[in-house]
Order: sequence, then structure tokens, then C-alpha cells
Amino acid sequence: MANEKKKMVSEITSMDEDFTQWYTDVCIKAGLISYSNIKGCMVIKPSGYAIWELIQKHLDARFKETGVKNVYLPMFIPESLLQKEKDHVEGFAPEVAWVTHGGLEPLAERYCVRPTSETLFCDYYKGEIHSYKDLPQVLNQWCSVVRWEKETRPFLRSREFLWQEGHTAHATMEEAEERTVQMLNVYADFLENDMAIPVIKGQKTEKEKFAGAEHTYTVEALMHDCRALQSATSHNFGDGFAKAFEIQYAGKDNKLHYVFQTSWGLTTRTIGAMIMVHGDNEGLVMPPKIAPTQVVVIPIQQKKEGVLDCAQKIYESLNDFRASIDLTDRSPGFKFAEQEMHGIPIRVEIGPKDMEAGKCVLVRRDTREKMECAIADVPAKVGELLDTIQKDMYNRAKAHLDAHTYIAHNKEEFEENFKETKGFVKAMWCGCRECEDKIKEDYNVTSRCIPFEQEKISDTCVICGKPATKMVYWGRAY
Amino acid sequence: MANEKKKMVSEITSMDEDFTQWYTDVCIKAGLISYSNIKGCMVIKPSGYAIWELIQKHLDARFKETGVKNVYLPMFIPESLLQKEKDHVEGFAPEVAWVTHGGLEPLAERYCVRPTSETLFCDYYKGEIHSYKDLPQVLNQWCSVVRWEKETRPFLRSREFLWQEGHTAHATMEEAEERTVQMLNVYADFLENDMAIPVIKGQKTEKEKFAGAEHTYTVEALMHDCRALQSATSHNFGDGFAKAFEIQYAGKDNKLHYVFQTSWGLTTRTIGAMIMVHGDNEGLVMPPKIAPTQVVVIPIQQKKEGVLDCAQKIYESLNDFRASIDLTDRSPGFKFAEQEMHGIPIRVEIGPKDMEAGKCVLVRRDTREKMECAIADVPAKVGELLDTIQKDMYNRAKAHLDAHTYIAHNKEEFEENFKETKGFVKAMWCGCRECEDKIKEDYNVTSRCIPFEQEKISDTCVICGKPATKMVYWGRAY
Repeated sequence: MANEKKKMVSEITSMDEDFTQWYTDVCIKAGLISYSNIKGCMVIKPSGYAIWELIQKHLDARFKETGVKNVYLPMFIPESLLQKEKDHVEGFAPEVAWVTHGGLEPLAERYCVRPTSETLFCDYYKGEIHSYKDLPQVLNQWCSVVRWEKETRPFLRSREFLWQEGHTAHATMEEAEERTVQMLNVYADFLENDMAIPVIKGQKTEKEKFAGAEHTYTVEALMHDCRALQSATSHNFGDGFAKAFEIQYAGKDNKLHYVFQTSWGLTTRTIGAMIMVHGDNEGLVMPPKIAPTQVVVIPIQQKKEGVLDCAQKIYESLNDFRASIDLTDRSPGFKFAEQEMHGIPIRVEIGPKDMEAGKCVLVRRDTREKMECAIADVPAKVGELLDTIQKDMYNRAKAHLDAHTYIAHNKEEFEENFKETKGFVKAMWCGCRECEDKIKEDYNVTSRCIPFEQEKISDTCVICGKPATKMVYWGRAY
Repeated sequence: MANEKKKMVSEITSMDEDFTQWYTDVCIKAGLISYSNIKGCMVIKPSGYAIWELIQKHLDARFKETGVKNVYLPMFIPESLLQKEKDHVEGFAPEVAWVTHGGLEPLAERYCVRPTSETLFCDYYKGEIHSYKDLPQVLNQWCSVVRWEKETRPFLRSREFLWQEGHTAHATMEEAEERTVQMLNVYADFLENDMAIPVIKGQKTEKEKFAGAEHTYTVEALMHDCRALQSATSHNFGDGFAKAFEIQYAGKDNKLHYVFQTSWGLTTRTIGAMIMVHGDNEGLVMPPKIAPTQVVVIPIQQKKEGVLDCAQKIYESLNDFRASIDLTDRSPGFKFAEQEMHGIPIRVEIGPKDMEAGKCVLVRRDTREKMECAIADVPAKVGELLDTIQKDMYNRAKAHLDAHTYIAHNKEEFEENFKETKGFVKAMWCGCRECEDKIKEDYNVTSRCIPFEQEKISDTCVICGKPATKMVYWGRAY
């Protein structure tokens, strides 16, 4: 049994040895994805898609609580439409897929497959918004988008990926700003409470902001290998797109005004973040709220009389949870390893001796802690334990984030911290593009965000020594 | 008030005058769609998309009960992959959109945007299926597909549309056949019980079957204008695709066998069917199970003291339902017309006099029947009424279907029945393609299906007079 298990586990590379390979191994061995023959695209398999369905369910409910309505806009953008906003087209045109023929005929104008839908929503809003009574518009769509990336990795970067993109239009800049921050808070709340992923909330620098945005807010998470991952973004466009697309409304003052717009998105890369924040050398570790299966019942010596019946009864007592039972004839060791690889938060082991004593064993996936439990108490104990696991997973991830967040008072400390990737470094910045470029060039590090929670670490920029204006989180990112 | 209402209603064309225009008017005025500047594509607006979300919810739950799991496959099909199954490529190649450039580079091989994903699932299954232990595979995806149609209409035919496509692989032809029929029954059950749309279940003829299928099953519905609408299809591919893609598994006998495959789909055109089966000259009529809003509370003389409070209390008592309250300062007549246009199954009217008497008025959308109801009884009455409306809507649609299904014993009767579009005509057929082609040519009528419930109407084919093999439903279709 021990050997069998070892064999299965040994199929994945140790994360300490090669984190990148460990990540890929987990994606494949836990059945989340398979590479497809369409270069740069992946198949999201049932175990992977079930996670996305739960992400959608939780996030969509949060969106709707804030008044968001879902829509569906076309997947094609005519080239002339993409070109209307100058910064936006510069940002995206180099990486879109172009459709040139429909059926047997060449198109009069080529279309790209949406890399993001600002231009389509602008085109739509232009027809829908006439008066202040038509505002605000608070819409979202769940769809796939295409960006012709050169290097791809499961969930983190692929030529096609799934996401939601919210697009709103407002009467004033203040209202747009409020929505931009509101949605960033929705993402942070979702990531922290449902995905157990602690995040740093802040603003992107001018260099790192979204193509066409006035400003971009971000939630940044720290992976187990101490690299940063931008986990969701929210953009305030001001009236830039409105001016490019001529989206105007008649105000209460009977004059025409441009609208102010926002957009915000979260993608399937969140699944990658979950893997890299919580996973370990046995495979996935799923936060209970997002786990497609929360608890699995595994009978031991299942041929012994009564064991299967007892396991079945325990399973049936768990119908308040996303529960399963493994009745295959594979060995318990194999089943345990599989439960661990798939990151199922709790397994219930029930064998003949336990059964006679009216007990069974619960095993936590996250800590691998085992505990005895009276059979009658299983549902209550599982409920409690799922809550505990969810909290503990967040707390461990938060402790990791805190332990790998460093302070650099000056250039020497900054440099010292980035000899290798150790996590986030907080440091003061003068605000100029040159210093940001220099940091990228010299240390291969990018600004992750200007956090909402500012601290004054020193008076001067760590690079140029001029007076500092902001404290910034720096890091190496996925 | 009456005038205002009349004005709003008069904005849609009468269905008796011009059914096609009535349909388009309803789609626009009920806020379901807007035309986009992307030729042949539409925007599904919040009121339209909310219907699709409920269709997804109901249908997805039914799928999962039968063991279906959801996945996501790439949206692109390389040309060489599309060409692997001969019939399939002939059916679809003339109407696909071709991607020729990724970013700034031309592609080595052009990709089409999926018009349907059989080839992609085959490519995936080839990598996944090795042994009988890997079978069956019962997968589904919710996505959009593209077919470069020349003439388009909201929901019924557009260049991009939303759907689900199930794709399964089995060890035997019998098992594939069982799944094909099972999914057709799931569609029929969903359409009849949730959408209140009665359907005829049957098999497509060789001429009408899906490109690459051994046989295709269909559910056919009858619209208010007596034209037929194919509402969902389920295909058994036998081992044709498996042979083209070399998808083989090692059986218990240790020999290699080809798998047997199915696919089945339902699209956003179901929303079109719902409009054309249930709608009337005031607008949409929504079956309660699919109505995004099931009941709306409308205060009358809302400035009178206590009316708004009372309306609010009634609204709050309705939280078991998808309820809303209209607190805008528009006139009640306008609000009534809007509720009717949107097809909300029940409205609750509450004014000062009713309130004093502890009563309110419930109005059914489908029959426009009004009934008094004690305020305390509203939740119970609404629940009852929604059930009644759902059943009555089905029964009325079934009566319409039955009343417009004719029997033709011979050529004269057949011809007589198709001088104008009067509905379905049941008639005997010899089974040969020539007669089917002739019927299409002479009467502009197609075979809708060979129903599972066969009747023997006469001994001979209505066209050629040779011995008949099947009874067929014929009709003019969308």
C-alpha cells in the first residue's frame, strides 16, 4: 500500500526541485487540463471545469448583489472598431487573431476575435444611452477571449482563455471611480473568502495600466514560489472611450455629456493561483468553498461484511455537502493518493474495526491530520472541519505572504532582496517612469501595485534618491 | 392611461398582420436583443440573457442527473482536422469563418472558428481513451459557435449563437443509441415541462440528418404562425468519426475496438421558439419556470399614504419567487403595458381602496384574467397561480399543435393542406429521396421527422404511390 502510494505521488516532480514542472504535473495529474493539438490552447477537463463553475457561481452571485446584469456581445470586432481608441488598439492589435473569410467569400473588412470587449461595449452603449435615465449601465459577460501569446502555460497564459468582463457606463467620473473600486473589493473579498487567497489591493503604475485606461486597480497575490500573480483588475476609463466612440447622454440640464466608463475582469488564471498558493507535493489542495468534491468516503477492506453498507450510510448522511464515495476495487492506498492529488479537503476512512467501534477516521487534506469521529457525528464534524480548513488555508497563505514581504529602505536593500525571488518588496518610489524601467532592466522586477494602504518607509526613491511620492510593492510576476 | 397604454402597445405590429415583423418587434421592444454593427450578429441584452441563464440552469441540472460533466475545448479547428470526416467537412466548410493571422504573423495552417465541435472532441478523445475503463465519456460544453449564414433573424439564425453541445463516446453501438435517445428525451422533457412547448419526437430522414451522423433525432415544435421549428437534435455517429480519427480502445477481450459516438445540442433559438409559441399582440408571454421575473408588484395612486408601504410589504412576502416591484413614477397604465410586453406571468396591483379592504388584484399575463386576493394570501395564491399558468400555457400550445396537425391520405389532400402554411401534415412516405425532393420542390415543404409514434394512415406513399414504409410529419420550417 505504501509503495503503491509512493509510486503515484512520485509521478509529480517535487515543488522544491522544480516548481514550474511541479505546477504542470499537478495540472495534468489532477485531471484539470490536457494540452490540445491547437497550439497554445488547452482543454479544460471535467475536474478543471468544475472548479470554474464554482468560481462562476460564487462570483456571479456577488456581482448580481451589486446590480450587475449579464449579457452576450458578439465575439468579432471589425478592424475599424478596434482602431477607434488609439492606446487600446496599440495595446491589443499585435496579439489578436484575424478572421479574413466568411464561408467561401473574403470579408470586406477583417474582424479580430475579441481579446477584450471594450470597443464592442462602446459600440453597444452608443446605441443604448441617450438620456441620464439610461444610466448607469452595469453589464457583464462570461465568455472566452483570444490573445495570440507566444509562450503559454496551463491557466496562466493561453491563446484562448475563459473570463468574465464587466463593462459599465456612468454619468460622472466619481460614480465610475466608485464602481471601479467596488468591483476590486468584490474580487478581493471573493479571493480571500472563497479561494482562501490573501491579496494586496492597489493601483497599477502608468507603465503597467491597461491599454486605454485612466487608471487600473489590481489585486496581487503571492504564489508558493514567491512570485506574484495579478489575480484580477478593475479599470476606470474616464471619458476617453466615450470621446473616441461619441457616447453622449442628455443630462438633467438638457445638455450633452460624455459618459464615464469602467471595466473589470477575472480569468481562469485564478485556478492557477489556487494551485500555486495552496498545492503541495501530493498535488492539489482545494479550499472547501471551491472544491467540486468536499469530502470523499473511502471504505477499507471493503469485502468484509458490512463495510460497504456502512460507508454508503456515511456517504448518504453527507448530502448537505458536495460528497462522493469511492466504490472502485482499487486499493485504499491508491484511493488515498488520488484524493490527495485532487485536493479533496476531507476523506472519511471506514474499515471493519472502526465500524465495530461505531467510529471512522477523518483525514484533512491540508494538514494530513487524522482524527477519530463517531459515525453519527460525521456530518456535523465534516461541516465544522470544512470551515476550519477554509480559515486555516487562508491563514497559512497570509502567513506566507507576510513572511515573504520585505522592506527596502535603500538601493542596497532593494538589490539584496532581488538577488533571488524572495517575495514582495515594499519600497519608496519617486513616481517616474525612468526608475521603474531601470528596476525592470537591472533586477527583472516589475511594480505590482501602489497599495491602497500606504506606509512611509523612507523619504527618497530607492533608485534615484529623489523625494519619494509613493510606496510600491515590487515583485517578479507570472 | 388607456391612451398611453394603447400607444405603447401599438408600437408592435399585430401578429395577424405580419407575423415576422411582430416577432422582430417583440424581440426589440421587450429588450431581448439589439442588432449589432457586426453584420449577422446580435447583442443579447439583459432581459434576453436572463432567459438563457434560466434555460442553462434547468437543462444543466437535467444533464448532470444523467452523469454529464462539463468541459471547455478550444474555439479553433485547424483546417486539416475539420477535413478528417468527409461528410462533416462537406456540410460545414462552406459556412465557417476562417482565421488566417495570429498577431502580425500569417498562420502556417488556417483555423476555422468552431461551427460545432465534433472534430475537436474526437481529437481530444483520441488522447484520452485507451481502455474500456476510459468509457463511457459523457461530456458537454456551453459555448458560442459561428456559422456564416447569409440571412439572419434574432435567435433563430445568426452568425454567432450560444448553445450547449454534448459529445459522448461509448464501447458499443447499443450504448451510443441509448444515450442518443436519452438526451432527446431530456430535451423533450425540458421543452414540455419548463418551456411549456409541446414537441413531436422523431428521427430525421437521410436528407435532413446531421453531416456525418448515422442518424439524427429531433424534437419539432409548432409556432403560432403554424411553421415548424426544430428545437433540439441528438445524433448517433456510430463509429464513423472514430474510424476517421482512429479512436480505439482495448476491450476486455484485449483487442482494439472503435468507439461509438453521439452529440446533442440545444441553442438560443429556443428563446425564439418560446416567443413564437406563447407570445401575443401585447408582447412576450413567459412560462413561469423560465421567466426571469415571475411576479411584479405595481402600486396604484402610489402617492396616497400607505400605498407604497403596503406594496413593499407584499413584495417582501414574495421572496420565494423571482419577484420585483415597480417604484418608478411612471403611470400604472405604462407599467401594466411594460409588464405585458416583458411577459411577466403575474402582476399584483395594489391601490388605496384595495389596501383599506385588505385586498389586492392579481392579473395573469397569459389570459389577462383579474382576480381579487386577500393581501395575506398573496404568496400562496401566486405560487398556485404560477403552477396553473405553466400548465395552462402548455395545454394551450398543445391544443394549437393538435388543431394544426392534419392527415393527408393521398396526394390531393397533401397538396390541399400545403396551399398555405396550416401546420404539420402527417402522411405516408415510401422512404426514397426522390419523393422527399419532389415535395420540397413542388410545395416548399420539408420532412420534419419520422415520429417515434407511428400511425398507419394509408398503404402508399402520397407522392409516388409505391408501398409506404413510414409515416412522416411534413411542414414549413424556420
